Amino acid sequence: MKKYQRLAEQILEQIAMDIWKPGDRLPSLREQVRHSGMSFMTVGHAYQLLESRGAIVARPQSGYYVASRPRSNHHHGQQVTRNEAVDINTYIFDVLQASCDATVVPFGSAFPDPRLFPLQQLNRSLSTVSKTATAVSVIENLPPGNSALRHAIAQRYAQQGVPVSPDEIVITAGALEALNLSLQVATQPGDWVIVENPCFYGALQALERLGLKALAIATDPVTGIDLDALEQALEQNPVKACWLMTNSQNPLGVTLTVNKKQALMRLLERYQVTVIEDDVYSELYYGRERPLPLRAFDEQGITLHCSSYSKCLVAGFRIGWVVAGKYARRIQQLQLMSTLSTSSPMQLALVDFLATRRFDTHLRRLRRTLAERKQQVLLALSQHFPPEAKIHHSESGYFLWVELPKQIDTRRLYQQALRYNISIAPGRMFCTDDCWDHCFRLNASWSWGEREQQAIMTLARLIAQQMEPGSV
Amino acid sequence: MKKYQRLAEQILEQIAMDIWKPGDRLPSLREQVRHSGMSFMTVGHAYQLLESRGAIVARPQSGYYVASRPRSNHHHGQQVTRNEAVDINTYIFDVLQASCDATVVPFGSAFPDPRLFPLQQLNRSLSTVSKTATAVSVIENLPPGNSALRHAIAQRYAQQGVPVSPDEIVITAGALEALNLSLQVATQPGDWVIVENPCFYGALQALERLGLKALAIATDPVTGIDLDALEQALEQNPVKACWLMTNSQNPLGVTLTVNKKQALMRLLERYQVTVIEDDVYSELYYGRERPLPLRAFDEQGITLHCSSYSKCLVAGFRIGWVVAGKYARRIQQLQLMSTLSTSSPMQLALVDFLATRRFDTHLRRLRRTLAERKQQVLLALSQHFPPEAKIHHSESGYFLWVELPKQIDTRRLYQQALRYNISIAPGRMFCTDDCWDHCFRLNASWSWGEREQQAIMTLARLIAQQMEPGSV
Repeated sequence: MKKYQRLAEQILEQIAMDIWKPGDRLPSLREQVRHSGMSFMTVGHAYQLLESRGAIVARPQSGYYVASRPRSNHHHGQQVTRNEAVDINTYIFDVLQASCDATVVPFGSAFPDPRLFPLQQLNRSLSTVSKTATAVSVIENLPPGNSALRHAIAQRYAQQGVPVSPDEIVITAGALEALNLSLQVATQPGDWVIVENPCFYGALQALERLGLKALAIATDPVTGIDLDALEQALEQNPVKACWLMTNSQNPLGVTLTVNKKQALMRLLERYQVTVIEDDVYSELYYGRERPLPLRAFDEQGITLHCSSYSKCLVAGFRIGWVVAGKYARRIQQLQLMSTLSTSSPMQLALVDFLATRRFDTHLRRLRRTLAERKQQVLLALSQHFPPEAKIHHSESGYFLWVELPKQIDTRRLYQQALRYNISIAPGRMFCTDDCWDHCFRLNASWSWGEREQQAIMTLARLIAQQMEPGSV
Repeated sequence: MKKYQRLAEQILEQIAMDIWKPGDRLPSLREQVRHSGMSFMTVGHAYQLLESRGAIVARPQSGYYVASRPRSNHHHGQQVTRNEAVDINTYIFDVLQASCDATVVPFGSAFPDPRLFPLQQLNRSLSTVSKTATAVSVIENLPPGNSALRHAIAQRYAQQGVPVSPDEIVITAGALEALNLSLQVATQPGDWVIVENPCFYGALQALERLGLKALAIATDPVTGIDLDALEQALEQNPVKACWLMTNSQNPLGVTLTVNKKQALMRLLERYQVTVIEDDVYSELYYGRERPLPLRAFDEQGITLHCSSYSKCLVAGFRIGWVVAGKYARRIQQLQLMSTLSTSSPMQLALVDFLATRRFDTHLRRLRRTLAERKQQVLLALSQHFPPEAKIHHSESGYFLWVELPKQIDTRRLYQQALRYNISIAPGRMFCTDDCWDHCFRLNASWSWGEREQQAIMTLARLIAQQMEPGSV
């Protein structure tokens, strides 16, 4: 850490300790030079850094003042949540493990019901591969991955009018590897990264693992990310990258309008922020047209667009990709030193399946079923959940975002429900503080039956108990 | 960086600039306090740090002196090579890419000839999976991985007399993911890690990626790692982990004796260093008995033992594992946030194949063929290579380590050979400096024919050219 950075940190600490309160005038540059024994330049840099971070504001002919914006992590309703050291504990791991137990109603699961996937046809493709795979197919499937598969993916983008070259696609072990590699390519430890609030926990875990700092931007279940808050964050911080979902956002389900996607992209281009786009749910729309990715509006090639087959075709193959543009070579290098490559037979089986042209037939059926099942769950929730509960649902994906009265603690609800063999995904998984502790994500992809009906009723009862006066 | 660390760095820089020469007496603590304006404690800490790093030595009643050991990175024949910022460029990537080109004689490849793998039988297993896989098998194969597969792996250790519980095994995307996750679990950025010199380039890349500092210990093609140098390094540095291969070391091929493995383990235990054991070639021994892993001598549970099926059964499945002991849960957590899990059909196919009990039959044939092919290459090398070339070969694996006269530059040889469609793995890939630039690794697993014979003769000719007086 350089001298001016240390000084800035010291002042931040003093602000945090209330030595300097919002609105207080800081010592002038001259005074600070005298106190600290540091050079004018060093002190100037420190004040600039604090200003760029939004901690202090300069008033011409007057001096530097402590910014009035609350800086606590745990302040509700704020538009930008700062977090210098993202700390995700084993909580997420435990919740995910619990939702994998076959005896548990998996409302907390992240996967869609695997019975909705075309198992027979995929197995047929696997069987074909078992007859045709050669000894050298391993080498053909090393990074950037199988050429026919990359072409098939590029063709699908072309159908949407999004020009993507097979050469800029790298096949990965699911979208999660694609996202992680993209983040590594775009950042250095210590960099600031924008995420949504709430957001996919994998983003928070990746940030923590890579020593990155999070700026979480308020994101609304209906309108999506708050562009004003985003602009404020970009203006006040040296942001390097931005990890976003603009289609069927996890956990909220919201899809941005075309206009908003455009505005978002222009804003990110203006600040030259690398965009890591998580687009794993885009095939699961219920409307007439597949929504465009943010990538479609990128005119400067700053987007790393990540997706996979795991949520729409087959979870177990672990095949995803990143449309990496100019970053493609660097992504391959990173992959070659972390997982080396993706399974060769899995890539070949997908190539075979996609060639049968059954993908679209499958997707149409899948979308219809997911929409029906979501309706079913919504009906049950409306019948059994208290009227204070707000159920956010969208025309895509299979998640519902359940917003309960503020006094409800969904971490407690999660623990209680688990005793009845029901899992949910509590709000705490999707942010770095407690601001969504009254919410949970509900996976509505499961076939409806007595067990599910009972589970919803049990959840409703547990919520009602927590709402009773005097309940702790 | 703390004050005392900065002071230590300053003094190191001064030593590097020859301001303080080996044997010079440094300013006393008292003098240093006066000069620097720092506290007695800070200066004391800085001197302690320098002493622990072997840069200075304390002489009682006399003061601190600059250590006499040469500290340059590029000094030949030194026993410990220090490297604070491991910098592996795109060189390795380029070499690996070149060796994947089907038109190139792949002496530089890391993979054994894939034609030696039981493709038919594996395909039969794949076909079985395609008939039996169910929708829920995805969930059954999430970390720690398929239970039957973990049992099969544990049973194989049991056959060797090494007690390993299936519960401490985590299935990974090849050994490379296992090794990378292990290193993450064992270290924090900035930690010192021991590697061999030369060593598997993947270790150096992983160290660089995770911001770790390398201590590379001299390793001999016949006797393996230099235990005295290792002890010296452990004594002088706060080493956190150690990444080692004790069986068929890559690139040298050396396997440590049982006595040496024991001595090595005792040494590492004494310094409480976490051991990351890369044991991917242990099935490829030519002798009567499979050599024991270092893990077999671990009495304190400090070893993360990594291996895979990629080098002995099938490369393209990308299935490896780590025997992680007490670290198993942490490994699973890391995996869940980086690649999520390993392909489910790949795990199931291996379970099916291992149940057929054809693994041992395959391995016996594989070992015999690899031994024969290595003999063939050795014969050709003895016929065509200059007598000054020293060919290190061992009773295991498929690599030869070719040591040429010092004036030969194998990076140049690599470039020249590539023009003749021949790849080699130059010494530069296996260390952080130029100390192995006169060596290269040769993959001897390929079937012998006219093309290979010609390639060896071409290499011999290029070497002879470089040996001619006046050649640059």
